[in-house]
Amino acid sequence: MMRVAQPIRWTSEGVVMLDQRRLPAEVIHHTYTDYREVARAIGEMVIRGAPAIGVAAAMGVALGVERSAARTLEELKTEFPVVCDTLARTRPTAVDLFWAIERMKQRFAEVCAGTRDLVRIRAAMVAEAQQIHLQKKTDDEAIGRFGAELMPAEGQVMTHCNAGALATAGIGSALGVIRVAVEQGHKLHVLVPETRPYLQGARLTAWELVEGGIPLTLITDNMVGHFLKTGKVGAIVVGADRIAANGDTANKIGTYQIAVLAHENRVPFYVAAPTSTLDLSLASGEHIPIEERPAEEVTHFRGVRIAPEVAAANPAFDVTPARLISAIITERGVVRAPYTESLRRLAATPAPRSAAPAAAPAGHTKSC
Amino acid sequence: MMRVAQPIRWTSEGVVMLDQRRLPAEVIHHTYTDYREVARAIGEMVIRGAPAIGVAAAMGVALGVERSAARTLEELKTEFPVVCDTLARTRPTAVDLFWAIERMKQRFAEVCAGTRDLVRIRAAMVAEAQQIHLQKKTDDEAIGRFGAELMPAEGQVMTHCNAGALATAGIGSALGVIRVAVEQGHKLHVLVPETRPYLQGARLTAWELVEGGIPLTLITDNMVGHFLKTGKVGAIVVGADRIAANGDTANKIGTYQIAVLAHENRVPFYVAAPTSTLDLSLASGEHIPIEERPAEEVTHFRGVRIAPEVAAANPAFDVTPARLISAIITERGVVRAPYTESLRRLAATPAPRSAAPAAAPAGHTKSC
Repeated sequence: MMRVAQPIRWTSEGVVMLDQRRLPAEVIHHTYTDYREVARAIGEMVIRGAPAIGVAAAMGVALGVERSAARTLEELKTEFPVVCDTLARTRPTAVDLFWAIERMKQRFAEVCAGTRDLVRIRAAMVAEAQQIHLQKKTDDEAIGRFGAELMPAEGQVMTHCNAGALATAGIGSALGVIRVAVEQGHKLHVLVPETRPYLQGARLTAWELVEGGIPLTLITDNMVGHFLKTGKVGAIVVGADRIAANGDTANKIGTYQIAVLAHENRVPFYVAAPTSTLDLSLASGEHIPIEERPAEEVTHFRGVRIAPEVAAANPAFDVTPARLISAIITERGVVRAPYTESLRRLAATPAPRSAAPAAAPAGHTKSC
Repeated sequence: MMRVAQPIRWTSEGVVMLDQRRLPAEVIHHTYTDYREVARAIGEMVIRGAPAIGVAAAMGVALGVERSAARTLEELKTEFPVVCDTLARTRPTAVDLFWAIERMKQRFAEVCAGTRDLVRIRAAMVAEAQQIHLQKKTDDEAIGRFGAELMPAEGQVMTHCNAGALATAGIGSALGVIRVAVEQGHKLHVLVPETRPYLQGARLTAWELVEGGIPLTLITDNMVGHFLKTGKVGAIVVGADRIAANGDTANKIGTYQIAVLAHENRVPFYVAAPTSTLDLSLASGEHIPIEERPAEEVTHFRGVRIAPEVAAANPAFDVTPARLISAIITERGVVRAPYTESLRRLAATPAPRSAAPAAAPAGHTKSC
């Protein structure tokens, strides 16, 4: 079994988080014993990637209940909304954050209706956070199994950004597909675009692949076309931040142009994401707003200015039209065009999970 | 008249070069009084861009003759090949380097056949280097005038890498087109991809545009597709390092994918380059070899490692198929497909210049 990075763990000492801001130069873990520390860590991007943020929020809520000084159920019920609100205010755009907090709220209400025993309530909330974490892992493994069948038996594949264990707290969505394929015996070599400006490819995906013993070649984002034209790439698999009803997919900036180049060079282009990424309320990708991040991420590198004082654009995401997507790989199976029909059927499939995403703020793209 | 950066100047004190490695953080000029210093500056990329390297080599040869301690023609004739060889060994792949040195050799032979007066010989060689510099400027201005007619009256245009004054020692090829258009009243706003890994866009093109008072927005290389899809870009104009007989064009890595994305989004894609860039000895772009540069340029940033210890690819150039090029803009006019015919006719046009490129080593791409 290959090594898989663990961005977050629940331990008896507290919530242990790998500091993704320091990777790959330093592998540093923080142990948080207060839910406010967890909230700050999410806000400051110690952990990133929508599913992983969801797990962190659930563990934050559990930590808030477990370590609460409340001596009565009434005291705990007064504290609980404060805990949830603090965690909800960290990253307003990540859908999984609200989904996870909502699920923790439902569980709290359930268990409080059945008992006044604070020990049992605390244990139930910790168990629920661990259950959410486990579900993310299970989803990733199912995505990995479905997706592995689409990977070539050998040769080069390409991904983008980091849709790995660090982003999901499982084995990764896109990287999960690659991991499972390699474990099944596919001889894959991964081309990793560095993914400017935040360098999730160079810093995080490259690091995960090294840890997993999967061979890779790092490239800059402007080399993608050259390698698709000359490099005999067998497949591309990326993650997703939001998928509209027609299959249009928002993902890390650069995904759209990789899809165009894949189409031009007849390379299959796959999106791997859990069904929680579906947003069937949006008819098409044109309704997905694009988060604009600070210009300094482009004009500066680790605090050092690399360009003169000029305007810089920094859209964090782009939208890939469904017609460029060969298939969408989810934990419930693989769907193909026409996506309006196939995604609707998929969403109607009985889910192995206990709750569906809810309470995501309208008009936001999840952050990666 | 807008400000134009001068990467190199001949002065009575010596050859004055702007250090492009330090831009845009520092604007530092070096004055070289020995041809060996000029050779080292070319090798260490104080100056880069094939036409500018050619000018530097010509000035290096002139400096070697002017500052020679030779007291007789025989002594000077013994020294001269050493000067030329030293300059020729700096950047083996730049076609203009060899073209310029060859032209200086021809002029030296001519003038020595007519006089033994060292003062006159020295003056003639200095004049020839200045003439080469002037020719580059004249070429750029003609390219600029022809190209300006293809620019939109207003709105966004895009370039790539740096095909500006810093690269040509004139007003630039691609940037020359943009400059002339702006001077003629076109209201242009330039989208500048940063051009990883060497950041010629962020460091050099952005700086030139600021100096020239032309508005711009810096973007990362993976934002190109997003802006072509959503940004209402009216035209793209890039430089070239070598153009094959069928119009296939080698240029800075990333050019190919910009051309594909332009085609997908119906944005005109222009190549601007002097006819010295034509290599009609090559039937198509597949014969143009691609220079592979050190992996450290990708894995490190200013000496700091940004990725784990992994393999990284670093092809410096890619090849854009002629079918994706809307037109090629040269100092002799604008040509369109079918390029095999139009480029052959163009090469046969009487040239305003006195010498044609010669002695370029086979099998190399010019460096940018």
